[in-house]
Amino acid sequence: MAESLFTVHHSDTKTKARTGVLNLPHGTVQTPVFMPVGTNGTVKALTKDDLHEIGFEIILSNTYHLYLRPGTEVIKTFGGLHNFMSWDKNILTDSGGFQVFSLAQMRKIIPEGVKFRSHIDGSYHVLTPEKVVGIQRILNSDIQMQLDVCSSWGVDKKEAVKALTTTDAWLGRALATWKNAVNEGYEGKLFAIVQGNFFKDLRTQSAELALKADTPGIAIGGLSVGEPYDVFAEYLSFTADLLPKDKPRYVMGIGTPEYILDAIEQGIDMFDCVLPTRIGRNGMVFSRKGPFALKKAEHQFDHSPIDSECSCKVCRGYSRSYLRHLFKTQEILCSMLASYHNLYFLHSLVKEARTAIETGTFSDFKKSFLSDYKSGA
Amino acid sequence: MAESLFTVHHSDTKTKARTGVLNLPHGTVQTPVFMPVGTNGTVKALTKDDLHEIGFEIILSNTYHLYLRPGTEVIKTFGGLHNFMSWDKNILTDSGGFQVFSLAQMRKIIPEGVKFRSHIDGSYHVLTPEKVVGIQRILNSDIQMQLDVCSSWGVDKKEAVKALTTTDAWLGRALATWKNAVNEGYEGKLFAIVQGNFFKDLRTQSAELALKADTPGIAIGGLSVGEPYDVFAEYLSFTADLLPKDKPRYVMGIGTPEYILDAIEQGIDMFDCVLPTRIGRNGMVFSRKGPFALKKAEHQFDHSPIDSECSCKVCRGYSRSYLRHLFKTQEILCSMLASYHNLYFLHSLVKEARTAIETGTFSDFKKSFLSDYKSGA
Repeated sequence: MAESLFTVHHSDTKTKARTGVLNLPHGTVQTPVFMPVGTNGTVKALTKDDLHEIGFEIILSNTYHLYLRPGTEVIKTFGGLHNFMSWDKNILTDSGGFQVFSLAQMRKIIPEGVKFRSHIDGSYHVLTPEKVVGIQRILNSDIQMQLDVCSSWGVDKKEAVKALTTTDAWLGRALATWKNAVNEGYEGKLFAIVQGNFFKDLRTQSAELALKADTPGIAIGGLSVGEPYDVFAEYLSFTADLLPKDKPRYVMGIGTPEYILDAIEQGIDMFDCVLPTRIGRNGMVFSRKGPFALKKAEHQFDHSPIDSECSCKVCRGYSRSYLRHLFKTQEILCSMLASYHNLYFLHSLVKEARTAIETGTFSDFKKSFLSDYKSGA
Repeated sequence: MAESLFTVHHSDTKTKARTGVLNLPHGTVQTPVFMPVGTNGTVKALTKDDLHEIGFEIILSNTYHLYLRPGTEVIKTFGGLHNFMSWDKNILTDSGGFQVFSLAQMRKIIPEGVKFRSHIDGSYHVLTPEKVVGIQRILNSDIQMQLDVCSSWGVDKKEAVKALTTTDAWLGRALATWKNAVNEGYEGKLFAIVQGNFFKDLRTQSAELALKADTPGIAIGGLSVGEPYDVFAEYLSFTADLLPKDKPRYVMGIGTPEYILDAIEQGIDMFDCVLPTRIGRNGMVFSRKGPFALKKAEHQFDHSPIDSECSCKVCRGYSRSYLRHLFKTQEILCSMLASYHNLYFLHSLVKEARTAIETGTFSDFKKSFLSDYKSGA
């Protein structure tokens, strides 16, 4: 019998938080896990050695972007994305659906899938559930996502139902294609995506459909799409409770310490976000006492590191004064160091959360961390 | 008796090439040496760890830029540029004169020095020979340059004489200030700069004035200022012959393999240039078979490294296909990897030249290298 994909190690008694391990084709992944985003096959401003040094066991990359550039015909000659980008650990790829809806110049849902024009050169493309599984197979993704339809905060129920129905129909087609690929030796795992917008009956219905498909893992989609924090928290908790305990749960697009700790508390195992690297390139950095902007005048003569409790190479080697100077002079090194620190910070936060879960102190850890974090840098 | 600044190890019998070692406050430097440029207190797109890894023992930084941003008052609180930028090896700083003439919005030579407006905010400043020594002392530069007046290719003799006369007058004032600083414990070395434009009698006169000042080292200025290659080569050779054998000789602004090998052949010990990092950020890379652009279509499916003979981490870890993709998607990693490789390439070239000098094979090495290099990548 094949080793199971996911094993829960420890379940918190006071919250729904849990630790576990994912057994994936490119090694194990301790959960909960934050996955940095490498949109174009590179986590922006970091080398693969940086990612190893921080300790990441899995990163995310974007099917939509890689499909357009460099194109699957290039990556295919490398036997997948790992060799192309020189990353020997795991890669999760999204389906490209979210980017089609947020980036493409035009998109239209047709029975086959989604038709759109590239945001780069305006060329026409069609992505179908089958094609998206095939692309991710060429990428040799360790975890791949089904093509889905994500609806925004504020749409009416009719539109939410339509998105859900299409998502479910596409899941069936993705699943069949993926099963064929597995029979042919492909080792990546397919995750279904629960939609249903902000309607509890639809969330329940979508979760039931995903469970019925029995994919190796399940993602909660359609959160962080413009809704207020309380609504996010309510629907995160509600949807998480609908999912089976023995499968890994993934919430897409979560990257602030507050949201990450909430997700962990609700029993979410995996999350990703561009936020730490994006804000890093804009000179904004995380610290135990909250995020702050490097450019602020108060840092001009400040010899202290970004975060005196952080043990990353940026905090061990460079002062706020120097980083502020790099930001003001628009040096690439500022993006490199700020991105590195922000990812190290989130990786450490999640690692500490894992330890707290194992020792039964997660609630106290979360409370204490957030109390400091909101005290102001 | 203090250890001497410079020791010649080996002099080539067929050419004027030589190897040696500089004994500087932040360690020894093997010569000939190529110094990467860190304009704003960072070699663009590289970390200090990258510089250590490649093996650089000295880098260059720009007084003009650091004086304007972050300002000497900031760097003073760090006890110098080394601590500010976290670089524990040697730093050579230029005088700022060249930048005043090439970057500032307005500049006027007055008896005191040079008056100019900042290219950043238009503010008025005056740099004098004394002030420039003082700034570089605050930077704690291991080698500092006198303030000079550099004239362009094509100016008439009258203007060349004027530039030379001013440069000499400023040398005297810089020297007096530097000697006072040394008496107060400053360990950095002052280099005079030979000007004289493209008039041999003026070059001779300027060299005599520099020799008379007896500074620890001497730079040849006013080359690579727009003149044709043959004129450059002629004046490099002519001026180098005017300099004493026991002092280190520095030519500013040389950064292509061809010019570097010429300079070494003429007995030049030190050179620097922004070129390897600047072209790297534009996706142009050095190889044994000549420089080439990563963006070229022929690299789309090319799994080979930039240079199969290069042992740098970029050539060991990444393909031309991937680097082309990074360039096309404007990823920061492209600048990081191309800059790293280009600096590694020049560092290796100079190291191999040193070995060739020591083994009496420099002429053959130069000929063989250039034959490959001009064969086309």
